[in-house]
Amino acid sequence: MRGGLIIFIIRKMSRGVVIFSGGLDSTTLLYDWVRSGAFDAVFALSVDYGQRHAREILCAEKIARELGVVHEVADLRGIKKLFGKNALTHEACAVPNADYAPDNMKTTVVPNRNMIFLALAGAWAASLGAGKIGYAAHSGDHNVYPDCRPQFAEAMDEALGLCDYSALVLERPYVNLTKADIVRRGAELGVPFEITWSCYEGGDIHCGHCATCRERKQAFRDAGVSDPTEYLN
Amino acid sequence: MRGGLIIFIIRKMSRGVVIFSGGLDSTTLLYDWVRSGAFDAVFALSVDYGQRHAREILCAEKIARELGVVHEVADLRGIKKLFGKNALTHEACAVPNADYAPDNMKTTVVPNRNMIFLALAGAWAASLGAGKIGYAAHSGDHNVYPDCRPQFAEAMDEALGLCDYSALVLERPYVNLTKADIVRRGAELGVPFEITWSCYEGGDIHCGHCATCRERKQAFRDAGVSDPTEYLN
Repeated sequence: MRGGLIIFIIRKMSRGVVIFSGGLDSTTLLYDWVRSGAFDAVFALSVDYGQRHAREILCAEKIARELGVVHEVADLRGIKKLFGKNALTHEACAVPNADYAPDNMKTTVVPNRNMIFLALAGAWAASLGAGKIGYAAHSGDHNVYPDCRPQFAEAMDEALGLCDYSALVLERPYVNLTKADIVRRGAELGVPFEITWSCYEGGDIHCGHCATCRERKQAFRDAGVSDPTEYLN
Repeated sequence: MRGGLIIFIIRKMSRGVVIFSGGLDSTTLLYDWVRSGAFDAVFALSVDYGQRHAREILCAEKIARELGVVHEVADLRGIKKLFGKNALTHEACAVPNADYAPDNMKTTVVPNRNMIFLALAGAWAASLGAGKIGYAAHSGDHNVYPDCRPQFAEAMDEALGLCDYSALVLERPYVNLTKADIVRRGAELGVPFEITWSCYEGGDIHCGHCATCRERKQAFRDAGVSDPTEYLN
């Protein structure tokens, strides 16, 4: 009985669920966890929350296939009304075309998005018997997005530790890294950056001028890593 | 500018969002908040998470109409797969027909359901400019459901306080009450118990023998309040 319990705990800790958008940060984290050898199995969760375009989900599917991880897309399009007006899910609201800065980016806040993602990941982790949830918030996110702050992640870690019969652990290994640090890490891991997606617009290739494209370009420049992304501008 | 800020904060605090299943507990809380006069407006959020039956959502709609509150049903049927096997959302899993007891009721745990509900309520509250979220967990829930424990609610309150530009507050006024106490409170408030719904089965009237029907009957008996529910058994 005791042995069974110990085996169960080990098994729980050797599965992980990564919140995975198909972007540069979460793709690097997914590679990090898969390559680490610390998990029996890593699962990738994407969320379709009525983003303006399905491009990032298609990229996520391709990356997951390439890595051979089980990938689930949670369909949240039925709750779009709860988000009110913001540039990422509401047609009447424009995407800002300027550098990342709190005032520019406030329109891109989807209210409480990260808590919803973490809650869904918690549900899936509990039913899979996975003990760890990974998410790739980094230091550059903090100024703009309240739900990317380390204090928020700490409170959610506490709640995830209490939400099920056995504790779930929230890991955010990039919380003190810059996006350039993540690019460097991704380059070490052989992340196929060319199939990751950052752009807020829904074109066939990255627009190159929206705030997130600008941030992406800058991260490659700062990291000293060659940027394989094809940009329109 | 300063005056504008103060008015904004007051306005935020005078709207509330109640997590509202159409059951006895959350209906009483909804009546409590509406009748309290403490809010300019109270909003009710139900979640369709692929429950076995739509009966409780129909009851919720009727009650919200009666009270004249704005009611939103978040459609989460697209994420049913994340919940794995449990008696409430999975067809192949039976509803227990015995009294509430941890071992009986474990099959009725929908993993991380309350974190998901609270996260959705947080998103809606942030877009409505509502400062308070109410949920009706009571002391009888604690043994069975990890995500009904007071420690869990405290961690979520902390996280909701950090998830947006201004803090959301999680209120759980019934956390130390029994279900019988809630029945007494509901009777004082004139809650139309006959249109609230508890039963886990999807019949036209309450089955009277599932664990939640048993708990409901017992609560009325313990409260010394006449039970207007029509039961099959």
